[in-house]
Amino acid sequence: MSKPIISRLTSLKRRKRLSPAWQVCLPLSAIVLLFWSVAAVAQDAAPSDPTAILTVGLDTVWVLICAFLVFFMNAGFCMLETGFCRQKNAVNILAKNLIVFALASIAYWAIGFGLMFGGENAFIGTTGWFLGGADNSPAIGKDYQGVFGALDWTGVPLFAKFLFQLVFAGTAATIVSGAVAERIKFVSFLIFSLILTGILYPITGHWIWGGGWLAKFGGDAGPGFWDFAGSTVVHSVGGWAALVGAAFLGPRLGRYSAAGATAMPGHNMSIATLGCLILWLGWFGFNPGSTMGVGDGSAISHIALTTNMAAAFGGVAATFTAWFYLGKPDLSMIVNGILAGLVGVTASCAFVSVPWAGVIGLIAGVIVVFAVTNIDRMKIDDPVGAISVHCVCGVWGTLAVGLFAEGPGKLYKEGLGPARGLVLGGGLTQMIPQVVGILAVAAFTLVTTAVVWTVIKVVAGLRVPEEEELKGLDIGEHGMEAYSGFLKEA
Amino acid sequence: MSKPIISRLTSLKRRKRLSPAWQVCLPLSAIVLLFWSVAAVAQDAAPSDPTAILTVGLDTVWVLICAFLVFFMNAGFCMLETGFCRQKNAVNILAKNLIVFALASIAYWAIGFGLMFGGENAFIGTTGWFLGGADNSPAIGKDYQGVFGALDWTGVPLFAKFLFQLVFAGTAATIVSGAVAERIKFVSFLIFSLILTGILYPITGHWIWGGGWLAKFGGDAGPGFWDFAGSTVVHSVGGWAALVGAAFLGPRLGRYSAAGATAMPGHNMSIATLGCLILWLGWFGFNPGSTMGVGDGSAISHIALTTNMAAAFGGVAATFTAWFYLGKPDLSMIVNGILAGLVGVTASCAFVSVPWAGVIGLIAGVIVVFAVTNIDRMKIDDPVGAISVHCVCGVWGTLAVGLFAEGPGKLYKEGLGPARGLVLGGGLTQMIPQVVGILAVAAFTLVTTAVVWTVIKVVAGLRVPEEEELKGLDIGEHGMEAYSGFLKEA
Amino acid sequence: MSKPIISRLTSLKRRKRLSPAWQVCLPLSAIVLLFWSVAAVAQDAAPSDPTAILTVGLDTVWVLICAFLVFFMNAGFCMLETGFCRQKNAVNILAKNLIVFALASIAYWAIGFGLMFGGENAFIGTTGWFLGGADNSPAIGKDYQGVFGALDWTGVPLFAKFLFQLVFAGTAATIVSGAVAERIKFVSFLIFSLILTGILYPITGHWIWGGGWLAKFGGDAGPGFWDFAGSTVVHSVGGWAALVGAAFLGPRLGRYSAAGATAMPGHNMSIATLGCLILWLGWFGFNPGSTMGVGDGSAISHIALTTNMAAAFGGVAATFTAWFYLGKPDLSMIVNGILAGLVGVTASCAFVSVPWAGVIGLIAGVIVVFAVTNIDRMKIDDPVGAISVHCVCGVWGTLAVGLFAEGPGKLYKEGLGPARGLVLGGGLTQMIPQVVGILAVAAFTLVTTAVVWTVIKVVAGLRVPEEEELKGLDIGEHGMEAYSGFLKEA
Repeated sequence: MSKPIISRLTSLKRRKRLSPAWQVCLPLSAIVLLFWSVAAVAQDAAPSDPTAILTVGLDTVWVLICAFLVFFMNAGFCMLETGFCRQKNAVNILAKNLIVFALASIAYWAIGFGLMFGGENAFIGTTGWFLGGADNSPAIGKDYQGVFGALDWTGVPLFAKFLFQLVFAGTAATIVSGAVAERIKFVSFLIFSLILTGILYPITGHWIWGGGWLAKFGGDAGPGFWDFAGSTVVHSVGGWAALVGAAFLGPRLGRYSAAGATAMPGHNMSIATLGCLILWLGWFGFNPGSTMGVGDGSAISHIALTTNMAAAFGGVAATFTAWFYLGKPDLSMIVNGILAGLVGVTASCAFVSVPWAGVIGLIAGVIVVFAVTNIDRMKIDDPVGAISVHCVCGVWGTLAVGLFAEGPGKLYKEGLGPARGLVLGGGLTQMIPQVVGILAVAAFTLVTTAVVWTVIKVVAGLRVPEEEELKGLDIGEHGMEAYSGFLKEA
Repeated sequence: MSKPIISRLTSLKRRKRLSPAWQVCLPLSAIVLLFWSVAAVAQDAAPSDPTAILTVGLDTVWVLICAFLVFFMNAGFCMLETGFCRQKNAVNILAKNLIVFALASIAYWAIGFGLMFGGENAFIGTTGWFLGGADNSPAIGKDYQGVFGALDWTGVPLFAKFLFQLVFAGTAATIVSGAVAERIKFVSFLIFSLILTGILYPITGHWIWGGGWLAKFGGDAGPGFWDFAGSTVVHSVGGWAALVGAAFLGPRLGRYSAAGATAMPGHNMSIATLGCLILWLGWFGFNPGSTMGVGDGSAISHIALTTNMAAAFGGVAATFTAWFYLGKPDLSMIVNGILAGLVGVTASCAFVSVPWAGVIGLIAGVIVVFAVTNIDRMKIDDPVGAISVHCVCGVWGTLAVGLFAEGPGKLYKEGLGPARGLVLGGGLTQMIPQVVGILAVAAFTLVTTAVVWTVIKVVAGLRVPEEEELKGLDIGEHGMEAYSGFLKEA
Repeated sequence: MSKPIISRLTSLKRRKRLSPAWQVCLPLSAIVLLFWSVAAVAQDAAPSDPTAILTVGLDTVWVLICAFLVFFMNAGFCMLETGFCRQKNAVNILAKNLIVFALASIAYWAIGFGLMFGGENAFIGTTGWFLGGADNSPAIGKDYQGVFGALDWTGVPLFAKFLFQLVFAGTAATIVSGAVAERIKFVSFLIFSLILTGILYPITGHWIWGGGWLAKFGGDAGPGFWDFAGSTVVHSVGGWAALVGAAFLGPRLGRYSAAGATAMPGHNMSIATLGCLILWLGWFGFNPGSTMGVGDGSAISHIALTTNMAAAFGGVAATFTAWFYLGKPDLSMIVNGILAGLVGVTASCAFVSVPWAGVIGLIAGVIVVFAVTNIDRMKIDDPVGAISVHCVCGVWGTLAVGLFAEGPGKLYKEGLGPARGLVLGGGLTQMIPQVVGILAVAAFTLVTTAVVWTVIKVVAGLRVPEEEELKGLDIGEHGMEAYSGFLKEA
């Protein structure tokens, strides 16, 4: 516990600044109070024969451990974003990344999971608040009876399903955190995160993973929109929200001037690199875990390998792409190249062969270098490259399904999966829903987050005062500094 | 390898300071030599039919992976405590946290596990030194024949049982580390840790998890004392020991004066936050792993979710509690709030519903803010807030079982578990043993650790010399500094 | 994304320095292009009955999770090596450790895995490039039909086998990284890593794990050479390569002079300690995962425990050994002692009892202190102690099999494993193949890496220019610094 607090705690003076706290606290309290009138205890139907119990047990172990790995991506994003920013704002970024998963847990539990998976409506979930409502998981398929029918394909307890989905929702919010870093008001970020994880992310998620209109695109015989582990559902949603946030906020003071762009180098490459490796680790839960079951082990092995190869090719491609243009192998480009490969393969990891996964990663690694350059040229200030990695490569990854998928039943589960991809001779059958899905999710997220950012701007303000930004948000927003005892440049 | 050592190694001068090394080395050697006359190779009874083998295999995988996650909490505590202290003492805190688990491994293997689980005595284990003695794990229940009967309910090999219990014992010692940081002699901390993990922790652990008098409180028909994953067994024991240690040591130089308390801010919030996230991750092994088996997956899913929701509510509650009083959302309070929620739900995670887990976490998050304040007012100097988090919230968590437990057979295992809690209309049935257990463990730990700290003080001294403390323990105790090459404040 | 890049990216000037990038890119491209003509999609034979599916599923989950843990050792090595070096070279070390696993993934996929496990030749694999060729995994034993017959004992899908072997190959390369740190050219390290993981490591690996001549040493009735998880295959190979690299490079400027050795202390003990704990965690995947299956859980429990006890005794032994000679418990010696214990027990973890594992670790912890001293006396400059830990203790660990193994069928799998060790009364039966294996692998690796380092020296140069080394490799090689905003010593 940092000590400045204690003395201030002791003084017990309630300041005028209480209002921001209330601003977050009120909607949060409303959500939680709503609970007591709605929630019912979920009931799991226990299987009886030993083999069935073992199957459910093994699948649950797999889903939980993968959920833990994805949870740990919070540490990855936290270290990555903090390291890539300046030390005077480190506490602020750490605090944002730490509290955002706590807030997401509450919001997604209260309403997000219900909006995403509750009921049969094509556009929005309508039931299942606070994990309430009927549910006889781990029963699957026709045996399943309950309100979360869109998840009836995985034979694990409801709480395991929820926890796995929750850690994905948390990821979407942390993506935004990086792009708006070093200038956003703490309270405004908290409000936005609550709305994103509680409402916006679940709605587009419902379209795709919740049995909504995109999942069923083309009707019963149609190909449907496919996004295995969330290039669109998680990454591009987070990325679009980040884009709007960064655009609304404007660049950091001094970032762009008539003389051109000014570099604002990150303060701690060690923790940024650690963050990248934690994220790579976490992706082994993110993608293979999205099977939400083990089966005969072939799908999870395949996905683990496609995931790894895309990361490897993405990292190498970005390294050399940057090297060619800069004459130097830039560390932050290696980091972003790896992440680009990972985001790129997320939608298709279960549906493409290992070599094509490498190609997808390689192209993502090249794309991300130019995306960073061009977003910077547009004077959209994204301190950590989040828009390039998650939005641009998320879109690329979603298209890649339509380009490289092997076709139904070839790799993942009999008869399931996207149609054969364009490059493999499958024509545009799968490309069409992929493009429609990308556009629909982009449109929805751009419009709704623009509205939300606007409302927050009016109600609470988006940006810290100029003097606070110059001095650093750590003192202004949190009253402490990250590296006490070290001498820093003025 | 830091280079100052080599030149000094080369000089090969034996210094007079050898004595502290010997002080730790002798008891350690005694323990190890004791081994050769006692130990026998444990024998596992292999199951034969395929389903039984699969069940044991799956349970073992689960227990081991959870043990690995709990082991990783050493990294969490290490980063948390180091980051919250000053840079001049960083090497010392790192070294303490690194070596303490190695020492705990040896002490707990030699005598701790035997004291905790060996034999049937109500107050203390009497056999099973060095994992010796009969044991036919993974046989369970009536089929089990061996000296560790208190663990006959989990069907995994003995070595898996041991490893899981060992990582818990290690946690108790690392809790102390934070509270006594920045002024304790290295050798004195090592001796204390050996005794805590080898003797004291196992004895109270025996009362509760080893089939001792608290487990059987009230007789065969009685409710018994319940602490599912260690709010009392691990956290409050570590916390009470930390309290006595901090009190005996006295505050850091300059911490309190006539003018009031002086802040001594931590030097690295980045690694402290990382530490918090690693601990949160580790808790997914700590609590769900305490099932020591998978079953149909429902218990481990339930526990993973209650654990997460308590952490989330704890973090949010502490954030806003601190925000109201300080006007600022303090990062170290977010960190401690999350940990408070986790400690708070540890005793009851298997026995309470998800909403009540949130309430338990929420209350813990509020409690921890005031605990930190009041312990500081009492001029007990706890640099990282360990007493507030582990002792105070450990007590709260143990009480929470008596308040919110659903009742036997409702959530965890048919017919097992605590009686229905007070708030749910169960009366004081479960509250009584919980209060008795809290008081008994507190009394035992306070008295015995006071004796141990006193003996160490007489024999080896507790506190580094004043000039060493002012200069930093890194140079004085270890002859090196943590951040060579950086300029620091004088 | 660090910002200096963007402005330079924008300028789009191709520099003369492009050549180093091409130097790595061309062999890499050649490898990848080779692919399209060779690779065939691997086909897994799916088991059909529920119990068989569950067994394969559980084994796959175990192998994958262990692979993830070993993958995470990249983060461990990255933090350890970076922390033990000076801050002016931090970006360089981070970049090396990050990209090296990406390169290893590509090289090992393209040719390494085939060289190590493809076909029946006694000296080198001859098939299986790009995971191509027949394979009906997870079929085992006589049911297995394919080109990777040396791995027919583990019943998991081919891709799981590959991923697990890949993360081991990656480890070998990261070991070298530490010993050559702070003076090697980035491009030269990349080329060496490609060759080590793609060609050299797989060849000696083939001799031992690929069914080659060392595995069959002594003929059908012979004892064979045994190295359970890679004391020789991984650690001493990496260590010998590191030794040759450090010797070829020569010491860092100013390290040794007529006046003696000059200390060059590491810049960040916090991340170095974190790295050590991540490595310890990773070893729980490295050793127990090398069973590549779960069975009845007894082997993996046993191995997890021997691994932990060796680490504990190694850490304690090194601490006190250093304390006796220095008068101070040196943190870097605690770190290296733990790693020494882990490397030491790697070969024998499945074959020795828990007490002997402790002894192996204890001796490794003593050895590493003197190894560091003596390697320094020989003026071989190894900034992180990699040669002492991985090469010297790798050799020790391989010998330990011949000294302490319980004998076939006693611990691991019926009838399999090394002959009874010398100390346990088994004579020299097992010692002979162990010594032969150590010498053969040492000779091969020393000669071939000497050739490779020589060729690289001629073609691309080994060492950065003197002025760049003095200024730090971060600016010279990467155009950025690791800790922007902090004031550093001149």
